[in-house]
Amino acid sequence: MNSFGQIFRISVFGESHGAMIGVVIDACPPGIALEPVDFQDDLDRRKPGARGTSPRTEDDIPELVSGVFNGYTTGAPLTVAFRNKNTRSGDYSVFTKIPRPGHADFVAAEKYLGYTDYRGGGHFSGRITLGLVAAGVIAKKIIKDINIKAELVEAGGEKDIEKAISRAIKNNDSIGGIVECRVDNMPVGLGEPFFNSLESVISHLVFSIPAIKGIEFGSGFAAAGMTGSEHNDAIIDKDGKTATNFAGGINGGISNGNDLVFRLVVKPTSSTAQKQETMNMDSGRLEELEIKGRHDLCIALRVPVIVESVTAVALADMLMMSKALR
Amino acid sequence: MNSFGQIFRISVFGESHGAMIGVVIDACPPGIALEPVDFQDDLDRRKPGARGTSPRTEDDIPELVSGVFNGYTTGAPLTVAFRNKNTRSGDYSVFTKIPRPGHADFVAAEKYLGYTDYRGGGHFSGRITLGLVAAGVIAKKIIKDINIKAELVEAGGEKDIEKAISRAIKNNDSIGGIVECRVDNMPVGLGEPFFNSLESVISHLVFSIPAIKGIEFGSGFAAAGMTGSEHNDAIIDKDGKTATNFAGGINGGISNGNDLVFRLVVKPTSSTAQKQETMNMDSGRLEELEIKGRHDLCIALRVPVIVESVTAVALADMLMMSKALR
Amino acid sequence: MNSFGQIFRISVFGESHGAMIGVVIDACPPGIALEPVDFQDDLDRRKPGARGTSPRTEDDIPELVSGVFNGYTTGAPLTVAFRNKNTRSGDYSVFTKIPRPGHADFVAAEKYLGYTDYRGGGHFSGRITLGLVAAGVIAKKIIKDINIKAELVEAGGEKDIEKAISRAIKNNDSIGGIVECRVDNMPVGLGEPFFNSLESVISHLVFSIPAIKGIEFGSGFAAAGMTGSEHNDAIIDKDGKTATNFAGGINGGISNGNDLVFRLVVKPTSSTAQKQETMNMDSGRLEELEIKGRHDLCIALRVPVIVESVTAVALADMLMMSKALR
Amino acid sequence: MNSFGQIFRISVFGESHGAMIGVVIDACPPGIALEPVDFQDDLDRRKPGARGTSPRTEDDIPELVSGVFNGYTTGAPLTVAFRNKNTRSGDYSVFTKIPRPGHADFVAAEKYLGYTDYRGGGHFSGRITLGLVAAGVIAKKIIKDINIKAELVEAGGEKDIEKAISRAIKNNDSIGGIVECRVDNMPVGLGEPFFNSLESVISHLVFSIPAIKGIEFGSGFAAAGMTGSEHNDAIIDKDGKTATNFAGGINGGISNGNDLVFRLVVKPTSSTAQKQETMNMDSGRLEELEIKGRHDLCIALRVPVIVESVTAVALADMLMMSKALR
Repeated sequence: MNSFGQIFRISVFGESHGAMIGVVIDACPPGIALEPVDFQDDLDRRKPGARGTSPRTEDDIPELVSGVFNGYTTGAPLTVAFRNKNTRSGDYSVFTKIPRPGHADFVAAEKYLGYTDYRGGGHFSGRITLGLVAAGVIAKKIIKDINIKAELVEAGGEKDIEKAISRAIKNNDSIGGIVECRVDNMPVGLGEPFFNSLESVISHLVFSIPAIKGIEFGSGFAAAGMTGSEHNDAIIDKDGKTATNFAGGINGGISNGNDLVFRLVVKPTSSTAQKQETMNMDSGRLEELEIKGRHDLCIALRVPVIVESVTAVALADMLMMSKALR
Repeated sequence: MNSFGQIFRISVFGESHGAMIGVVIDACPPGIALEPVDFQDDLDRRKPGARGTSPRTEDDIPELVSGVFNGYTTGAPLTVAFRNKNTRSGDYSVFTKIPRPGHADFVAAEKYLGYTDYRGGGHFSGRITLGLVAAGVIAKKIIKDINIKAELVEAGGEKDIEKAISRAIKNNDSIGGIVECRVDNMPVGLGEPFFNSLESVISHLVFSIPAIKGIEFGSGFAAAGMTGSEHNDAIIDKDGKTATNFAGGINGGISNGNDLVFRLVVKPTSSTAQKQETMNMDSGRLEELEIKGRHDLCIALRVPVIVESVTAVALADMLMMSKALR
Repeated sequence: MNSFGQIFRISVFGESHGAMIGVVIDACPPGIALEPVDFQDDLDRRKPGARGTSPRTEDDIPELVSGVFNGYTTGAPLTVAFRNKNTRSGDYSVFTKIPRPGHADFVAAEKYLGYTDYRGGGHFSGRITLGLVAAGVIAKKIIKDINIKAELVEAGGEKDIEKAISRAIKNNDSIGGIVECRVDNMPVGLGEPFFNSLESVISHLVFSIPAIKGIEFGSGFAAAGMTGSEHNDAIIDKDGKTATNFAGGINGGISNGNDLVFRLVVKPTSSTAQKQETMNMDSGRLEELEIKGRHDLCIALRVPVIVESVTAVALADMLMMSKALR
Repeated sequence: MNSFGQIFRISVFGESHGAMIGVVIDACPPGIALEPVDFQDDLDRRKPGARGTSPRTEDDIPELVSGVFNGYTTGAPLTVAFRNKNTRSGDYSVFTKIPRPGHADFVAAEKYLGYTDYRGGGHFSGRITLGLVAAGVIAKKIIKDINIKAELVEAGGEKDIEKAISRAIKNNDSIGGIVECRVDNMPVGLGEPFFNSLESVISHLVFSIPAIKGIEFGSGFAAAGMTGSEHNDAIIDKDGKTATNFAGGINGGISNGNDLVFRLVVKPTSSTAQKQETMNMDSGRLEELEIKGRHDLCIALRVPVIVESVTAVALADMLMMSKALR
């Protein structure tokens, strides 16, 4: 399914080198002021071009195709589309026969019986996350005072991100990273015990972002070595504020009013300039492969804004569900 | 929503100390041999009673309420219910005023406006996972030769689980743990790039299990410190088998035919016998709280079978989706 | 799928002669006063026993299995179950080989590969509508001042229902009927242009009631012979009240504040005492069939309360969706 | 929700006078040959321009925006879009204050708080059905040998459609009609008893087509005056073929292998050139209204292909569900 959400529901479409990619949003409330310029900041944060990211340049101009009229959302399905311009269709057909290690080439060919659009990763491309960012811009307007802030806190195994990127450039080999997301001004009561726990919904969306290999909330994997009396957050006021926040702002799947905190790991992007070995599916022989083209050495640099976006989408949906039940 | 799944869809219901808890399964294929005894092994693995688990005893006898006839599934909604017998309704009302740290007492009261069934955790209870295990038993029959094996690989911060439990008993304080799940004989092609990646669907279900704080696939958080050339798994045969498995069996959200591997962290259960401080919501004053009752010192011991169950549910649903598209 | 609804979502389960039948309701708001006695009136209206209905007697006592605590809904999944008591398991196996005309015997055997529970119609039985009525009782509490009133306005082709039933009894042959449903005190704005028009959602649910063959809103089939200037309802006040109501209270799929009006036709129940011809699937020869057992001569008598129930379910869901968008 | 379907899921977007309208299809199987020319016949049948239809001319050229590559569907979300060219934005703003009788002007303003795109009916326009027809073209390829044929069998209350249209043109007043749809080569087993009966799913989609006021299957409203022994269709061969077809090809919500037959009524379009009275929402006074512009005198002429399309969508989804369960 290319859709997600109970009420505020998003559907993404498009391929990396197709005519356009975009997102359709269902059940966007009417009356939200919305103009193309509102997307600029978040789109810019996602854009390649910075040191360590791909040199592919796209102007990423959002077209408000439907659901917006006279500067406001109408309540009808809201579509935001982006033209693909800087496309190179010739680069990729070889990978249907010689699948790149770590990429979706092999699984895509198998799953879709050989009919997949292989150009630039097709529908598997990180470019599809443009639609997630566009949806996030709108979702952030719905959740209003809830503030979401994600940042890259570690790259290539160290805290000094600039240094890690310099090393990646020097080695011409991609690196991973850790992104931390903190949400303050959270209301109490978002999420459900089964099956839409706040962790469930956020992780569902986060694992739709390419290259994510793990997520942890609050204490996360450190909880394995803690005792209950250490881990329990003492409640210290009537609004539920706690002295510590090992829970990451969630109890029983439901937001407790403290900051929502989670971290996720981004693997080093599979597109590395290093020579690699893989199977030639035609000849049945192992071959050496060298991937050319425009790649990210540290895709993790571009992930924080996408994480913010999907978190906003999750919270907007849950806020609306919460209103429905009042 | 208390339902999950696109085709093979499960809905759980019930409270810890209500009349019964259970699960309704939609779109279970007809013709699957199913008898109450088939549930025994997995229910036993989930049961309390072992060293480090709660002494609450329930016989956990599954009633096949609907959807089974003459020993086979019929294709109609399949309901499995379990009577609650060993209930103690008097223990819990105090926690609506004096919420236990780390529990859902506070969020439940807020979200449900004070109407929540607070007895034994109500619908937040780990007891609801009985329904997940029951669904898993059926799902395992659907996925046939796909083998799922989850086990506790670490407790209280160490590999020697017996020792960790002994220490927890001695300290009378709960401990966490790490569960690893491995699935072999995986077909290629389960999962979608957006939004139902294999990671998305599994994590969605896993985070419905109480006490889970994180999940990682394949290399997981270690990927943060790896390079692309290290992390990429070289494909070494025409079936997509790889030399290493940092991907955890998933590329682009889709199973690649290698073992599916993930790990999750279980926090120390919030019910500890240690004295804790919390807010008395009536008086507005901090109070010392000592929780009596029947608790798990290492709930992680009971988690593996539940992880297997929800993994089976996820895979059964995806297998059916895969058939639908052929 | 045995579930329906976007937010207020109902799932039915059970078979006519199984242990119990029931309904699970998702996203029922907390704090609604609910006791078993609240179901009595509507259950009584659905019950067989009146002249022209089946003599099967069931006490139809609702068990509030989950989601209700201390007399109020809790917000957790709400399950209402009914024990089947007056069952006769021996009557029905023959129909798997000699399918009854007009019944689901043939399609059930084909669709479910021979594994269907054939006793008393199994999951196809009108008895499953008990769950719909139970859900309707709760939905009616959610929609509060919106009044739904369905009644049988025609039976056996005439307005005098008593006379039609007397004739059916005399002829020992079942008859059909027409049910009209009117809803007053409707808010403006329920429903969507695509795909959840008010007509779409109501008809979806209405056609889940066994034996319904058609539905029309407002002018209905008479609209085929009208002109636009006749059919358009003139708006006569600022609340949208119209002079006529050919629209049946709906424009563009959305309630317009006038009475919602629709009619549906109930076919004569297939269980007639008359001899009929059918195919013996074993021998491949036509055979004469005479159906014994306990049947309704005018099932339409029992339909109005079920229509009210599903209408209430539809409106409750739409009201909640409407709140979500504010 | 602007989406429909369990597996083969369609989402429509766009407004009558916006940049473009279209449809996104989820879970379209890969490997279906698809080119723009494949849409031509059905789009032409839907097009205005014939006697009795609107003179608005649009070239209705389908753009295969995503999900198609090298002439075949890829399995990724499939988007078909249509540019709006012949738009006139100035005609419509007055109707936000002086709502047209029979139109959605009033309900749209109320539901969407005044933010609706009112140009040409916005998202309420019959133009949105272009997306349904596009989806139907693809769905027809999925259902292969199942043949769907809908036709206008009555207009303005009579069988002679040409004559009825001539009269409508002469009177300059719109007329309604009845469309009959017949599907042959139906497999046995599509549909469910609850809640996705074949009637439920088809009626859900049919009532998303603007101007439909009723639907009946098989005997339909005539069943009200029949007896059970008349209405039951005798099974005359082992494939379930029946001597009569009062059931319309459906028993217990499931296709029985006989022709699926249903009829629906199309009201006279609300856009009539006749003077009408309505409320001026600003002044609070009744006013006379005369609607200019380009309208259909017999919109029913354009409905058959749309009915075929949504029927194909329903059947494609059910066929895929059926495969999932094998």
